[in-house]
Formats: sequence, C-alpha cells, structure tokens
Amino acid sequence: MTRMSLNCPMPQMNYDIITLGHGSGGLLTNRLLDQMIFDLFSNPILDERHDGAVIQANGPIAFSTDSFVVSPIFFPGGNIGDLAVNGTVNDVAMCGAIPQYISLSFIIEEGLKMTEFWEILLSIKHTCDAAGVQVVTGDTKVVDKGKGDKIFINTTGIGAMHPKANIHIQNVQSGDKIIVSGHVASHGMAIMSVREGLSFETEIESDTAYLNHTIKTLLDEFGTDIHLLRDPTRGGVSTVLTEIAKVRSLGVEIIENNIPILKQVNAACELLGLDPLYVANEGLFVAIVSNDQAESFLHRLRQLEFGEHAAMIGEVVSDHPGQVLLKSAIGGRRVLNMLVGDQLPRIC
Amino acid sequence: MTRMSLNCPMPQMNYDIITLGHGSGGLLTNRLLDQMIFDLFSNPILDERHDGAVIQANGPIAFSTDSFVVSPIFFPGGNIGDLAVNGTVNDVAMCGAIPQYISLSFIIEEGLKMTEFWEILLSIKHTCDAAGVQVVTGDTKVVDKGKGDKIFINTTGIGAMHPKANIHIQNVQSGDKIIVSGHVASHGMAIMSVREGLSFETEIESDTAYLNHTIKTLLDEFGTDIHLLRDPTRGGVSTVLTEIAKVRSLGVEIIENNIPILKQVNAACELLGLDPLYVANEGLFVAIVSNDQAESFLHRLRQLEFGEHAAMIGEVVSDHPGQVLLKSAIGGRRVLNMLVGDQLPRIC
Repeated sequence: MTRMSLNCPMPQMNYDIITLGHGSGGLLTNRLLDQMIFDLFSNPILDERHDGAVIQANGPIAFSTDSFVVSPIFFPGGNIGDLAVNGTVNDVAMCGAIPQYISLSFIIEEGLKMTEFWEILLSIKHTCDAAGVQVVTGDTKVVDKGKGDKIFINTTGIGAMHPKANIHIQNVQSGDKIIVSGHVASHGMAIMSVREGLSFETEIESDTAYLNHTIKTLLDEFGTDIHLLRDPTRGGVSTVLTEIAKVRSLGVEIIENNIPILKQVNAACELLGLDPLYVANEGLFVAIVSNDQAESFLHRLRQLEFGEHAAMIGEVVSDHPGQVLLKSAIGGRRVLNMLVGDQLPRIC
Repeated sequence: MTRMSLNCPMPQMNYDIITLGHGSGGLLTNRLLDQMIFDLFSNPILDERHDGAVIQANGPIAFSTDSFVVSPIFFPGGNIGDLAVNGTVNDVAMCGAIPQYISLSFIIEEGLKMTEFWEILLSIKHTCDAAGVQVVTGDTKVVDKGKGDKIFINTTGIGAMHPKANIHIQNVQSGDKIIVSGHVASHGMAIMSVREGLSFETEIESDTAYLNHTIKTLLDEFGTDIHLLRDPTRGGVSTVLTEIAKVRSLGVEIIENNIPILKQVNAACELLGLDPLYVANEGLFVAIVSNDQAESFLHRLRQLEFGEHAAMIGEVVSDHPGQVLLKSAIGGRRVLNMLVGDQLPRIC
C-alpha cells in the first residue's frame, strides 16, 4: 500500500458522528472498520481480520502498553493519534528493542465528529509509516455521551530486542554521564499553553516524535556502553533521575545551565510557576552512557534525527546516594524529588 | 508468589479514592503501583519495572488487544477485571495460541473508590492465575470526574501458537459442523438484568471465563480438524456466523432447538424483545469442525472445563451462499443478519 498523504479525503460515511452503534460489534462497527480502518492500515497480518494477529518472533521481544487520554486531542505539533503511536514506539525502543508491530484500541465518546476521527486515523497512519511499524490488530468501543472525553487510545507495541542492547537500571554506575536528546518540557508546555490560552511570539509545539531510528543507530554503534534509556514523559526528567538515584543508591548531579530548553518554553514555565524538569516530554530520551563513550555518543546523537539539540546535563556519582542535586545557574544547589501530586493532568 | 485469596486485605493507603495525582507519573503513581500492583502481580519480568517488558518468543505468536468499558463494572458472575483478562485470553486462544503474557492499562475516573479498585485488581490476579497468564507490563491514567466512567481497562495478550493449530476462516468448508461450547446469551442478559432491574427466580450470571485450557486440549487432540474458532462477544453468535457465510460465500444452517440457553436467560430475552443469538457472550466459543471429527470433538468438549453444555447447532452448506438460515422450533426458516445498531451498549 502506498503512503497516504495527510490530506487524504475521508471515505463517504452515512454518519457525521460516531454513534453507540459503531461500538456494537455488528453492522455499523463492520462498516466503520471496512471503510475507515482496514483499507488505511492494510497489511497481510491485519487483513486476516481474526480476533488477534499472528506474527513471527524469534528470540527476546519487548512488549509495552500505554493508554492516551490527552486533552485537548488536537494541539500544536500533533494530536492524540501520533502521540499514541510515538509513545508506544518510544517505550519499546527504550527497552533496547526495534518496534515492529502495534495494536490500536479506541474508546470513543458518542458524538465524536467523523472528520476528527479521520484526521486522527491519518496521523496514526502517517506516524506508523515514518516509524516503520505496522498496525496488526485493534478494537473499537463507544461509550455514551458524558462517559468519556472525545477519544482515548491504547497502543501496545512489540519489537525484537536489538542484539547489542543491554539496557538495565542495574548497569548504571558511578561516573556514567547523563545525556538528554533535545529540548526539555516542550510537550507539556504546548498542552498547557492551549489550555491556559497563553500566546508567545513563537508558538510552543509538542516534541512528539518517534525515537526508534535514532536509538537503533546508537545501539548499533555504542551497544553496551548505553547503560539505560528512558523517555521522560509524565513526571519529566526529574522523575527519571530520581528513580535511578533511588533504585541504584547512587547520587545524580545535574547542571542547570546545560539543560536545553526553548526560550518560549522556559517563559511559559516561569509564567505558570512550573519547573521544566517535571514537565512531560514526548519526543525526548535520557541516556545513561559510560564515561568513556559519552562524548562520542553525544557527538553522534547530534547528527541523528531529533538529536540536534542533545546535551550532556550531568553525571552519576557515588556521593549523596539516593539524591538528585541540581547545580543552579546562580551557583546554588537544590535537591530534586519525584513529582508530587498532579502538576499537569491529562498531558498524554 | 503464592496465590492470593479473593478476600486478601487491601494495603493501607493514604487516600480513599483515586485522585488525578495517581495518574501524574510522579510520587502518587509510584506509591499506587508499589503498594497495590507490583506486589500483587510480582513476577521476574514485571519486577524489572522498565517502560516495557522483555519476554522470550520463539516462532509465531498471537497478539490481541481489547478495551473494556462494561457498565456496571460489577455484575452477577464477575466484574470488569476478570472480564478484561478472560476477554483477551480468549481472543489469543481463538487464534490457536496458548496465552502467556498480558499487559494491563487502566483509565480511571477521578473518584473511584480505592476499595473498588482493589476488588478489581484481586479479580484480575485470581483470573490470571487460573488462566495461567502473567501481567508483565502496564499503565495507569486518571481522567477528571465526568470525563470517564469509573474505570476502563485495556488488556493486550501474547501467546505462542499451538504447533497443531491451523485456524483460518479460509479453512471453513461445506459439510463442516458448527459447535457452541455452552449456553448462549448469559453475559449480555446478566448485564441487562442489572441495568433494567429485572429479577428472576434464578439470578442470571455472566458466563465470563477463560477458555484457553479447554482450547489447548482440543487443539492437542483434534489439531487441523478445527477449522475456525471464534468467541461470539459483541454481536453474538449470529454475527460470527454471518461473517463466515459472507467471507466464504457459503451457507450456514442453524437449528434453533439445538441452541443451548438457560431458561431464565431465554425468559429475559423474551421480556426485553432481544434475540439471544445477537447477545454478547464472554465464556463461549464457536468451533467450526470437520464433519468427520465433529461428533468426537463435541463428546470431548463436554468433558472439559466450561464445555459441559456444548452442542452442535448446525452446519456449513453450499446452498444459499452468504446467508445464515435459522430453522425455528415451530418449523419456519428465517435469515439471520449481522447486528444492526447497538442493541446492548457497553456490554463489555
């Protein structure tokens, strides 16, 4: 099947909105699947149309799931559809695997506009093609008006482990360097700007992106020197670093000046009183890399897709075990903790 | 870890209800996971606590997903938790595979009682143990009050294909026999009875059950004589048979008198004007078996778990291609079509 353009016209449907009948499992569900989903995502596995997909797997695989409830469903830089694909593709990649297949499960609130659903489906298709994954199985449920919120999407992904990957939190050791792959806090602040009606000279866009091709190249070239990979989504970079410090009983030191952040994102954080290190990212990863290879890794990452703004932000130390210390721009030090409460609900 | 009893006490929690903070990805999410989920479902793969699970797979695997939005979340015979495990276990089994691993993803409406969440978790654990599957990865999201409905659960399952299985709708041929594994329409009518406040001498209970052990034994013994397996959930038995007739351009003939149904379920269907062949089942399968082996298959199935009330209800014919004909108890014949509209919303 050829790649769909993002403005591919919607098939002629008998309904302008999704109704409860579209979730019945009967005729309307079948028509919805036939006209809007099976053609768009057609591949030999999906075309079998069984209750599940049969796929080949040889050796260890990574398996990851996420439900997406972001509000609003359309935001600068993306929508819930590409977010749902990127999120799961990235989770599989963070295990050190190469994402291959995903499942797609919708919970739609009665009344969702058919045109909005189609736009989301096209984004999903476009992102799957770009990331190189196939939708092989799925499910569609519809809930009555007021019992959902437009659309929730679950994606579950599968991928073969990269033969050189050895990603384990237990591999993190004192002296390792901490690298982030790009600007922090863009996704969370894109959502918050829409919700709060903030406007800046430059619009804040979500960083939502598939990181799997970049990760694969880095694993090809740096293998076991990559000790840990995490995508700092909900809870942000701080929560990832706090977990490392806690689980490994090691210290983490971060230099505030080294943290890449866009000017308008920083301004939005200051305006709303949010610490960018706690804000969700959707196209960013944190890599913990051996001291020996960290510079080469960073240099290479900056040449790769979505890695241009990568930076080394700190290191793992044996001092102050269990604590993440931030050396601030003005010379102070403060302890970072895990996010408490819900700073930004429904960010992904 | 030893099997939990269903009345295992809930851990001491600081909150009586689920709050938005429990979905933040920060401290509250971590506490919820630590105290309520990781201990209960502990296994070496889950205990890694990465973004995804790494599992071994060798050869073809089945992969299936379903989101559950049933209302009410507790009903006679089960709750949304065991339903979510059984549903996905059965979908994997219907592919001719042996379910091994599942993912568990919650979308919780703010305000869900912690005790209700715990009861659901215990049912999930109990059902996973009985079905022989492990929860290896998951996700928890919380939406604001009025934007969900207590709890929605997505489960995605993986299982190795049974070496003797060859389940394809293309294998169905004229002369094949149609066998159902038990009473029809019990799940749908259990839900409807609660919603409509109906009461009968005998309470109607959902048939929710894991069918994988039964399917495995049948595949061991009958292998490729099993041409197709389907679980007639939403849309019921009729929708499964209609799909077979349509896709294969063959006819299907069903004898109404042979269809096993409980007296109180039949009474409820009559009262509500519903055709039991369109009502959802959650512990039932339809098997299309070669004419040669159909009698032995039925005999064996009746000895197996959840197969006691199995019956041969009809056959595949070369006449009237694309049509399912029901021979009624009073001698008439009528054509069954796919379910139109949504007879029973949010049944699973």
